[in-house]
Amino acid sequence: MSDLDRHDTIRAVHWRGDRLSLLDQRRLPFEEVFVDCVSAAEVAQAIKDLVVRGAPAIGIAAAWGVVLAARNEFARLDQALAVLRASRPTAVNLMWALDRMQGVGSDPAALAAEAQAIQEEDLAANRRMGELGAALLDGGGVLTHCNTGSLATAGFGTALGVIRSGYGAGRISQVYAGETRPWLQGARLTMYELVRDGIPAQLIADSAAAHLMRSGAVQWVIVGADRIAANGDTANKIGTYQLAIAARHHGVKFMVVAPSSTVDMATPDGAAIEIELRAADELLALGGKRTVVEGAQAWNPVFDVTPATLIDAIVTERGVIRHPDRHAMENLFLSGHD
Amino acid sequence: MSDLDRHDTIRAVHWRGDRLSLLDQRRLPFEEVFVDCVSAAEVAQAIKDLVVRGAPAIGIAAAWGVVLAARNEFARLDQALAVLRASRPTAVNLMWALDRMQGVGSDPAALAAEAQAIQEEDLAANRRMGELGAALLDGGGVLTHCNTGSLATAGFGTALGVIRSGYGAGRISQVYAGETRPWLQGARLTMYELVRDGIPAQLIADSAAAHLMRSGAVQWVIVGADRIAANGDTANKIGTYQLAIAARHHGVKFMVVAPSSTVDMATPDGAAIEIELRAADELLALGGKRTVVEGAQAWNPVFDVTPATLIDAIVTERGVIRHPDRHAMENLFLSGHD
Repeated sequence: MSDLDRHDTIRAVHWRGDRLSLLDQRRLPFEEVFVDCVSAAEVAQAIKDLVVRGAPAIGIAAAWGVVLAARNEFARLDQALAVLRASRPTAVNLMWALDRMQGVGSDPAALAAEAQAIQEEDLAANRRMGELGAALLDGGGVLTHCNTGSLATAGFGTALGVIRSGYGAGRISQVYAGETRPWLQGARLTMYELVRDGIPAQLIADSAAAHLMRSGAVQWVIVGADRIAANGDTANKIGTYQLAIAARHHGVKFMVVAPSSTVDMATPDGAAIEIELRAADELLALGGKRTVVEGAQAWNPVFDVTPATLIDAIVTERGVIRHPDRHAMENLFLSGHD
Repeated sequence: MSDLDRHDTIRAVHWRGDRLSLLDQRRLPFEEVFVDCVSAAEVAQAIKDLVVRGAPAIGIAAAWGVVLAARNEFARLDQALAVLRASRPTAVNLMWALDRMQGVGSDPAALAAEAQAIQEEDLAANRRMGELGAALLDGGGVLTHCNTGSLATAGFGTALGVIRSGYGAGRISQVYAGETRPWLQGARLTMYELVRDGIPAQLIADSAAAHLMRSGAVQWVIVGADRIAANGDTANKIGTYQLAIAARHHGVKFMVVAPSSTVDMATPDGAAIEIELRAADELLALGGKRTVVEGAQAWNPVFDVTPATLIDAIVTERGVIRHPDRHAMENLFLSGHD
């Protein structure tokens, strides 16, 4: 039993030696179906179609996509890298993982070892962030958004890892999860992980968060990230920014939890982060059935940017930044730790 | 052709002389199915089940429910009034309409005349509010929430009436509608009305509102109300409060549009308004199909309270209150206008 299996039995990304098996997250929580990929193009398509999602899990899947290209395709690796790089624009872990793979060369065994290392390092980072983030909590309720758990990472989770650690340490009594339209990652995936772990949790409509905060039930909002810019501005699932504004309005603290692979010191601030717009159909239909009148249009940005000024703490495996700004970010991420 | 028909061909509430036909709003926009009610109990159930929704439309339907009781049931009217009064707790228009009906006595013809008057006055109020609210706009984009149009009223609408008038007057160029989980009144009903009227509109996830505001695309948020307390605090569809906080954060103006029947001077402030909690199932399933793992819990408040301090204007048919507070509310609503 590998280290991953010991820590967590739900896993999104499974390397099978000759193919990559991805747990199809579009069909959870009721169907556990795997999508097998044998080429980088198939991995890229699975990323684009949200078979696998969550910034760290996307990076890990893409790393294995490069291994597949080196083993099975006998094509130029740079083509595979380009296809994977283009699969989704916002999460920087994808670019980071591909840069790492690119630095290894073209030997399949070396590439597989690097993908395995990326996966194991992510799990270790999550465990460390869990401890660091939980130490910031003093009991009470927390609200999270989207899914940042085992399904979004190599295992354990980022924000959900902090929630797991915090609940285990008696520093959280109640979790609230926003359902996270349009893909309902909170409803389908986070509630699945929380119920499975026996952590007391209530699902809420995304629009009920401010009303919940006003009731006093929540002391922290804890979210993940898809990209953290050099000044601490953070791109994450659409709705995160709205939560941060509501949290500040109510004196609720706001924590971002992400591995250092999510930090992009080459992006100066949030305005420079590309926000993915997805198809209008994701809002115009539910479960494949049209819900909105024909002729209707929809605007479907799937990420937004929370400015650093609304963030109380950024938790990474390298340490915690309170009241993030460019100076604090540079101290932690440009100080030669690696 | 009645006055109602001339103004608007979508109507939620139809009196048929011997029964009340309600357009089943749970099945819009794709199925136009009517639910016929022949007793006050059936009307109360239809209100509870959201066959008819929207504070003014609920009040109108309940008024016709009293007529049905007087005509068909030969029972004590006070039983019918009690059953209708208990159907939903937050919208005060229900209580207001029932109080009016109670004042008429028990003669079926007099009760029918009163119900008809309530319905016609609501339409006239909407037209007037449309003019008053549109005059506050200076062009650009607006965001609305839930459905406040013909389907929520006797016709034309409250917030959506202002949007109709504002678009007609060239004072709005683009409308955004929040989808309004969990019942999707924005997606299903507001988009239906807007597309039908040819008003340029985009549907957004409720959680995308702050990101939209940050883009500069929206100058006003325009919403309806289920109850306005004596100090201007306003109960409305869950998510309204979150929009008001985000609007203030971005310098976007916030307008509440509701007939004076929504004003409850007997409720001192928002804290005194009962907020309806509905079944968890509304969040745990979509279209009758379970989406969330078994064992999961949900918290489903369907209204929230926006404090008067976050409201720039309350528009009623009696006039506009800028920066509402108790004093301004008392001037307009306790000054003997009626």
